Amino acid sequence: MNDLKIPVTADIASAYEKIKPYVHKTPVLSSSLLNKMFSAELYFKCENFQKVGAFKFRGAANAVLSLSEEELSRGLVTHSSGNHAAALSLAAKMRGAKAYIVMPSNSPEVKKRAVAGYGAEIRYCEPNLRAREDTANEIIKETGAAFIHAYDNFNVICGQGTTGLELVWEYPDLDIVIGPVGGGGLMSGISIAVKGLSSDIKVYGAEPLGADDAYRSLKSGRHITHHKPDTIADGLLTTLSKRTFTILSENLDDIFTVTEESIIECMRLIWERMKIIVEPSSAVTLAVIAENPALFRNRKVGLVLSGGNVDLGNLPF
Amino acid sequence: MNDLKIPVTADIASAYEKIKPYVHKTPVLSSSLLNKMFSAELYFKCENFQKVGAFKFRGAANAVLSLSEEELSRGLVTHSSGNHAAALSLAAKMRGAKAYIVMPSNSPEVKKRAVAGYGAEIRYCEPNLRAREDTANEIIKETGAAFIHAYDNFNVICGQGTTGLELVWEYPDLDIVIGPVGGGGLMSGISIAVKGLSSDIKVYGAEPLGADDAYRSLKSGRHITHHKPDTIADGLLTTLSKRTFTILSENLDDIFTVTEESIIECMRLIWERMKIIVEPSSAVTLAVIAENPALFRNRKVGLVLSGGNVDLGNLPF
Repeated sequence: MNDLKIPVTADIASAYEKIKPYVHKTPVLSSSLLNKMFSAELYFKCENFQKVGAFKFRGAANAVLSLSEEELSRGLVTHSSGNHAAALSLAAKMRGAKAYIVMPSNSPEVKKRAVAGYGAEIRYCEPNLRAREDTANEIIKETGAAFIHAYDNFNVICGQGTTGLELVWEYPDLDIVIGPVGGGGLMSGISIAVKGLSSDIKVYGAEPLGADDAYRSLKSGRHITHHKPDTIADGLLTTLSKRTFTILSENLDDIFTVTEESIIECMRLIWERMKIIVEPSSAVTLAVIAENPALFRNRKVGLVLSGGNVDLGNLPF
Repeated sequence: MNDLKIPVTADIASAYEKIKPYVHKTPVLSSSLLNKMFSAELYFKCENFQKVGAFKFRGAANAVLSLSEEELSRGLVTHSSGNHAAALSLAAKMRGAKAYIVMPSNSPEVKKRAVAGYGAEIRYCEPNLRAREDTANEIIKETGAAFIHAYDNFNVICGQGTTGLELVWEYPDLDIVIGPVGGGGLMSGISIAVKGLSSDIKVYGAEPLGADDAYRSLKSGRHITHHKPDTIADGLLTTLSKRTFTILSENLDDIFTVTEESIIECMRLIWERMKIIVEPSSAVTLAVIAENPALFRNRKVGLVLSGGNVDLGNLPF
């Protein structure tokens, strides 16, 4: 795929064919209690059940499967302390390629162990973006490894978009699809997929008020990259890239911010009522409905639960 | 059904036909990570996704659906502070009947709220079995309500057994089915169902070492009712009844006890690896495998996860 051309639904369908043998087709769950509570039909797309516990494996798998054997032989590199790091490590392992993961030295032990467990080589750096990029660049110079950005990469975006294909194929009559926005890779892919399948379905983004760069960017029409995120939703700390800003500007029908209180309350609701474990970044979707009930009343809403990787020893309730 | 005649598989199939429109057909989940960890094929039957968050709704529904309109008009009564209380309340509501639930006055607020939320009338009593039975008897005298014991009742046992039917219909080539034993209603029903469908499948019980009355009863051949349970698995504090002792003596291939440490560790494993919420009573099943790995190596094992009702503010990790 030409990396300068914005993907279309067919590109996401191609990604789906490519990654299908390797990813889980995740279930879509409902809760009659939550439906009653919000007077809406809610369909939760459970990427917390995806491999590595997050949708990130779809994008990483598509990126890795799009490389030639020759490229793979030189390895893969990314900088991430989160789900993308684990996802790329597993995707690399799956194809017998070496993965170099640049992680801030202060990353939680549990994340270091997960990445190491998939056989990746970890390179530690100072906990700032500059140090991460510099360390990744050193590895590229040294090894010729292919850099796979967590979201500013069209193959990654197409992989994430397969979440939207599966959801709308299973529930074609949704009125709304809503998902979390961090760097914007997930909702870029999903919005392309959903809009391509049905122009009737509205696609909304959900963002913590404490990390509202996408909200400010999309509402102002200017790509804002400066922000100091402060939220429990640790998967949504990153800012839009030029690619994701362009796609989301075009495709999102609206974007909403939610408070930390709503995120924690909705995370607890999902745990207690649905008996599934989701990370705070997943709960921003239900939080939008909780904060704007009239907008969703009597509507069929698909909610994308991005992942379920939480530190059980450090819960907010 | 004659209450003196031990049920057979056909009775459980009848129960299934009766309750099918009202219960969830719960999913059976697998985890490649757990399979690898234990060198076995593990199939988790997820009753944590059942209505009221536990298998108990199956038995309560079958009991309520087995009563005549005339009996229902006088109401239902039980004593329970746990999942059976919520299950019977919902089953009664479903048929427009009144439920009287006798609960110890020191029951957790969350359980009182759940039962009240289903429209049941709560009668509080002192926290001991004698007071519970006396209070229930007073209600019966006063109202003529039908008493539905949590497990010493063949209609309840047949309802719980439908869990086993669903599991073995979906996975007929299991080598072993293992489930938790408290009062023994669940495993009485499941063992009848499974043995009726296939005499090749072994059926094992799992019990906390701190509440091992069933282990001691079944190993000694004498029905032991005196015990002082001390375990985090709060669904498994009760003792076998004469009915469940008789059925389990006949049907269980073996019973295992597990330590509190194993229960907590396996509960955490299920939460972290499978991203689902299960209560400690569910985790005793995986704990048996963790404590006896050689017995289960390379076997196909069905594990019954009994429920997912936990106090998120009071977790053991």
